[in-house]
Amino acid sequence: MCAEIEREKVRQAQTILAEKGIDLWLTFVRESSTNPDPVLDLILGTSVTWQSIFLIPAEGETVALVGSLDVAHVKEKGVFDLVVGYRESLRPELLRWMERFAPRRIAINFSRDDVLADGLSHGLYLLLLDYLSGTPFVERLESAESVIAALRGRKTESELERIRRAVKQTQDMIALLDRVLRPGMTELEVAQFLRQEMERRGLAPAWDPEYCPSVFTGPESAGAHSPPTDRRIEPGHLMNIDFGVILGGYASDLQRTWYFRRPGESAPPAEVEQAFRAVRDAISLAAEALRPGVEGWRVDQVAREHILSCGFEEYPHALGHQIGRKAHDGAGLLCPRWERYGRLAFDPVEAGQVYTLEPRVTVPGRGVATIEEIVVVRADGAEFLSDRQMELYMK
Amino acid sequence: MCAEIEREKVRQAQTILAEKGIDLWLTFVRESSTNPDPVLDLILGTSVTWQSIFLIPAEGETVALVGSLDVAHVKEKGVFDLVVGYRESLRPELLRWMERFAPRRIAINFSRDDVLADGLSHGLYLLLLDYLSGTPFVERLESAESVIAALRGRKTESELERIRRAVKQTQDMIALLDRVLRPGMTELEVAQFLRQEMERRGLAPAWDPEYCPSVFTGPESAGAHSPPTDRRIEPGHLMNIDFGVILGGYASDLQRTWYFRRPGESAPPAEVEQAFRAVRDAISLAAEALRPGVEGWRVDQVAREHILSCGFEEYPHALGHQIGRKAHDGAGLLCPRWERYGRLAFDPVEAGQVYTLEPRVTVPGRGVATIEEIVVVRADGAEFLSDRQMELYMK
Repeated sequence: MCAEIEREKVRQAQTILAEKGIDLWLTFVRESSTNPDPVLDLILGTSVTWQSIFLIPAEGETVALVGSLDVAHVKEKGVFDLVVGYRESLRPELLRWMERFAPRRIAINFSRDDVLADGLSHGLYLLLLDYLSGTPFVERLESAESVIAALRGRKTESELERIRRAVKQTQDMIALLDRVLRPGMTELEVAQFLRQEMERRGLAPAWDPEYCPSVFTGPESAGAHSPPTDRRIEPGHLMNIDFGVILGGYASDLQRTWYFRRPGESAPPAEVEQAFRAVRDAISLAAEALRPGVEGWRVDQVAREHILSCGFEEYPHALGHQIGRKAHDGAGLLCPRWERYGRLAFDPVEAGQVYTLEPRVTVPGRGVATIEEIVVVRADGAEFLSDRQMELYMK
Repeated sequence: MCAEIEREKVRQAQTILAEKGIDLWLTFVRESSTNPDPVLDLILGTSVTWQSIFLIPAEGETVALVGSLDVAHVKEKGVFDLVVGYRESLRPELLRWMERFAPRRIAINFSRDDVLADGLSHGLYLLLLDYLSGTPFVERLESAESVIAALRGRKTESELERIRRAVKQTQDMIALLDRVLRPGMTELEVAQFLRQEMERRGLAPAWDPEYCPSVFTGPESAGAHSPPTDRRIEPGHLMNIDFGVILGGYASDLQRTWYFRRPGESAPPAEVEQAFRAVRDAISLAAEALRPGVEGWRVDQVAREHILSCGFEEYPHALGHQIGRKAHDGAGLLCPRWERYGRLAFDPVEAGQVYTLEPRVTVPGRGVATIEEIVVVRADGAEFLSDRQMELYMK
C-alpha cells in the first residue's frame, strides 16, 4: 500500500504551501475511481466514493472529510491526521472546518495548462461555490497549479529510486527484445514480445495498453500514438519502440531505434546515420542546457535548433515531459512556445524534476529515428537515469 | 476493440439530442488516460493525448478534432465520420467547425449531481470559454447531463447482453466460492479465492481492486468500501460479499450473504432470518415499484419503509444505482432525498435502464445481511438479470 510515500508527499506539500504563502490546499472529489483527480495518487493512495474533501493546511493537522462508508479505508491508509465521516451532507462539516482553519488563501485543483493540476470537475467547482456561498472563503479560491507542479516535480529520493528501478526493468526487456529482432517480424509481434515480458515480471504498462509499447517500422508507419500493426520490418528500414512500465507506482518511458541492413550492407546509409546522430547530439546539448532556473522552452529550443541545423525537419511535439507517477507527469514541460502548450513553456526548471528528452527525425523512405532518455535535474545540471543509446542498433 | 457498440451509442446520442432539442454535444478532453471524461468510453473507446474536441450534432456528420499524433488511432476506431488533426493550436479548427454547425444550444459535460456527466475539468471549461470568446457560442453552453443520463441509461440489446454475461460469470464464481466456504477462513482468503477465479477467467474487477471483492464478516466488520481483512469467519456470524466484474466493457455488481451455524444449530437465529427476509422482501417490493416514469426516491422509499416496518434501522445509502460500463453508471439513482444526492433522487426512471437493488440490515452481534440484485426496467416493469438469492445461504 506504500502509504509511506503518500505521507512523505503530504509533509512536502505543507512545506510548499508555506513557501508559496497559501494557507490551505483543498481537494474535492467524488467517485474517484470513475472520475479521478490525479493528485489523489500522490496524497492519498486510494479511491473514495461519495463527495470527499481533503484539507491540507500549510501548518497543523491534515483533515479528510469523507462519506461514512469511506472512513475505515481512508483511516487505514494513515495519511491524514483526522478522518471525519458524514452521512447526508458534506456541507456542514466543510463549513465547520473552514471556520476552524480560517484560511486567507485557498488553493483548489484547476489549471488551464496543466492536466495534472486540473482534477476538479466543473460541476464540483460549482458545488463548492454553492457550499461556500455566504462565507468569505468563496472569494479566496485560487489555482493550486504551482503547489501541485512543485509537489509532483520535486522528487524525493524514494521516488527517484522507484523511477530508476522502472527504467532498469524497461532497459532489461529491451535488451531481451534486441536478441530476437529480425526482419519479417510484424510490429504486433514486437509488441507482443514486450507485453509478455511485462506480464512475466508482473509489471503494468506506463500508458494506454493499446499503444504501450508502441512499435513503428518503415516510412509508412502510423502516428506516434497509434497501436502496433501487422506491418513487417523490412531490410533498409528503421524501427523504433516507445515503451514504459509502472513499478512501485512510478513510471519509465524510453524510445530506442534499430536499423535493419539490406543484403550486403555493412553499415546504415549515411542519411540514416546522420539522422540518428542529430537526435543523439540534440539530447546531449539539451541535457547540458537543462539546469534549475532555465525556462522549459529554452531547453527545447537547443534541441530543436540542432535538428534544424543538421538539415532535418523539426519534431512536431515537445522535447520532453516530466515523469513520475504518470508517464506524463504534468508541468513544466520542455516545449516550444506554441499556443496549445499555454504557459507551460515558461515554467522554470527546478531541481528534483525528472524529464524525458525525446527528439525525433523522419528519414524519407526509411522511417523514424528517435531516442528517449530520462534525466533528473540536480542543482548542478542533468543526471541521466537511463543508459543512453549512443549508437544506432543494427541488425 | 468493440467499436460497433461505440458507433451504436453515437447514433443513439444523435437521436437523444434531437429529442431534447440540443443542436450540438461538445466533449473537450486532454490526456484522457490521466484525466478521463467517463463519456469517452461510450463514444470513442480509446484515449487521446493532446487537447481534443468531439462534436456530435443532432443531425449530420460527427467530427473529432484531435492532435496530429492522435489522428491515426482515432480514425482506426471508425466511430467519428471526420477526424481532423492539428499541430499548434486547437482554437482555429474549433472556431471553423462551430461556424459550420452554427448551433443554438450546445451541451457540454458538467453536472453538479451526476459524476458520469461531469467529465469536463474546470480548467478546460475556462479554456473553452477563452476559445469561444467573442463568438455567440459562448452564451449557448449548457449542461449535457440529460443527454448523458439518457445515453448511458437506455441500454441497447447488445449492452444488455454483455451485462447478462458479466452477471452470469459473477454468479458462477460465487457458486464455486460457496463450495469452499467454512468457518475459520479469513476475509482475505475469501477475497483471494474470488480474485484467482477472476484472473483464471481473464476478467477485471468492476471497481477498485482493493475492495472488489469486498468481504465482511461478523459484527465488527469495517465500512462498506473497506478492503478485506484477516478477520476470521466465526460460527454464529453473518458474512457478506460485494463483487462484480467487467466483461466486454460492461459491469456486474452483486451482494450475497451467508450464515455460519454454531455447533448444534440447525437453522439461523430468528433475528438473522428476519433481517434476511426484510432485505429480500424489500427488493421484491422495490422491483414491483420500479417502472418507467416513477421518480427514483419513491422506489427507494418502498424498500426503506419496508425495512423500518420490520423494526430494523434504515440503510445509510441509496437502494440502488445504475450499472453499465461502470459499476456506478450515473444518473438517475434510487436514493433518498438527502442533500448529497442532489437532484438525482428526482430523475424519472426510464425503460432500458439497469439498476442494482441493494438494501442492507445490520444484526447486532451477528453482522450484516445484504443482497444486491440487478434488474432492467422494461415498459411494463422490472425484469431481474440476476438469479435472486431467495434464502440465506447456510454453512
